[in-house]
Amino acid sequence: MLVRFGVSLEKELLSKLDGLLRAKGYTNRSEALRDLIRQSLVQEEWSQGKEVVGAITLIYDHHKRELVNKLTDLQHDFGELIVASQHVHIDHTNCLEIIAVKGSPVRITELADRMRAIKGVKHGQLSMGTTGKDIK
Amino acid sequence: MLVRFGVSLEKELLSKLDGLLRAKGYTNRSEALRDLIRQSLVQEEWSQGKEVVGAITLIYDHHKRELVNKLTDLQHDFGELIVASQHVHIDHTNCLEIIAVKGSPVRITELADRMRAIKGVKHGQLSMGTTGKDIK
Amino acid sequence: MLVRFGVSLEKELLSKLDGLLRAKGYTNRSEALRDLIRQSLVQEEWSQGKEVVGAITLIYDHHKRELVNKLTDLQHDFGELIVASQHVHIDHTNCLEIIAVKGSPVRITELADRMRAIKGVKHGQLSMGTTGKDIK
Amino acid sequence: MLVRFGVSLEKELLSKLDGLLRAKGYTNRSEALRDLIRQSLVQEEWSQGKEVVGAITLIYDHHKRELVNKLTDLQHDFGELIVASQHVHIDHTNCLEIIAVKGSPVRITELADRMRAIKGVKHGQLSMGTTGKDIK
Repeated sequence: MLVRFGVSLEKELLSKLDGLLRAKGYTNRSEALRDLIRQSLVQEEWSQGKEVVGAITLIYDHHKRELVNKLTDLQHDFGELIVASQHVHIDHTNCLEIIAVKGSPVRITELADRMRAIKGVKHGQLSMGTTGKDIK
Repeated sequence: MLVRFGVSLEKELLSKLDGLLRAKGYTNRSEALRDLIRQSLVQEEWSQGKEVVGAITLIYDHHKRELVNKLTDLQHDFGELIVASQHVHIDHTNCLEIIAVKGSPVRITELADRMRAIKGVKHGQLSMGTTGKDIK
Repeated sequence: MLVRFGVSLEKELLSKLDGLLRAKGYTNRSEALRDLIRQSLVQEEWSQGKEVVGAITLIYDHHKRELVNKLTDLQHDFGELIVASQHVHIDHTNCLEIIAVKGSPVRITELADRMRAIKGVKHGQLSMGTTGKDIK
Repeated sequence: MLVRFGVSLEKELLSKLDGLLRAKGYTNRSEALRDLIRQSLVQEEWSQGKEVVGAITLIYDHHKRELVNKLTDLQHDFGELIVASQHVHIDHTNCLEIIAVKGSPVRITELADRMRAIKGVKHGQLSMGTTGKDIK
């Protein structure tokens, strides 16, 4: 169910906001504000330990001995988190692997830390998203 | 070619570091320091406008009218950036889409902004990685 | 001049928002949304290179030889940025110094980098604020 | 007591690192690595709930009714955290106030949230530092 409420603000602030929204490709002020609201709520889900969704993005050198085995082992140890994964060959040496995960923020962070710590993994980043269940 | 250099630091700082590394799953101090170094270099690649790799993670409600068409249109408009994408059905309503991108930081950021602005996209996050080419 | 506009959103999203606002001490929904808007605008000021305000927070060991001289020299080299500074003795060894700065984001970032690089400075952080001039 | 350990890495990675350090004003590789290490440890202090130091940077319009009283009341309610504060007149309307705090990360974050929520506070940022006690 949609509800509606009013926001009052300085004319100059509104015109600044409109400029920013145009630059970011919004066609609709309400949608932009909903996005700001949702962003705050997603941060809250992570800090409150709710079930969340994330993406672990790794760049690694697949020539490194044992790396692929260790990555696979970890994916089994944390099997309850792994939803899917995607592999891209960036060049002869470098692979990009993006692992979609769902579960508790603490466990997901632990998995990301462990993957980053593997020798040959050059860079690892955890992107913090939401299941969308409680974020309409 | 591997080279070696010495780092001197307070004994207490080293022991704190070792504790942190154990907690994060490192078995090797050098590897941990290399990771800290690489992390700084990847930030630098993004701020210097080098060719980089990223992942755009979207959560959206696929029932929203026009959303899928708009996402597809954008992927064509920014076609030179898109490497691959992966789609996961989180539940009856919510989809997770992770798009692997490669190109200039400015263009990638613009694409992420545009995708986030589409109505029905509840959350969008840009994860900033590297091609690994200059990060050994 | 105050203007007013309407935002429409899902009832459940609004009730989540209200919960978050209570937790953060807001008594007023409009004020919370204005804060989200201003936060986006301040980020934009930094990325667009507008005149901004910041605070550089340093923790250092004042016993380190030459440290205080180097900090003073830097404050003179970047004199056009420095607005004021505040010094707190945390314990026998550690000082907290907070330097209020105003100027271009690039110069401020350079100053913060330089200060952090001084031997004996244990931690340095740049807090990114606004002059408030264009943020009503 | 100073100890020394060796780090081995690819020659190319080292030369990239050296370039970055020059750009940031480091004259010494060890000092740069110590800074990266300390930065990780300070993050850990905040996430582990250790006693930490911070700076809350506020920009506000001092003409707003009740604002100054509310800020003062809050500083008394959270009195055990407040170490010192500094006030700068940016222009006729805007004040910059930087409050140095020491205590538990949770309480400090709560105080920053409350201050940001006051009507007339345009922007508030929490900078996360350390007491330096355990960070040599």
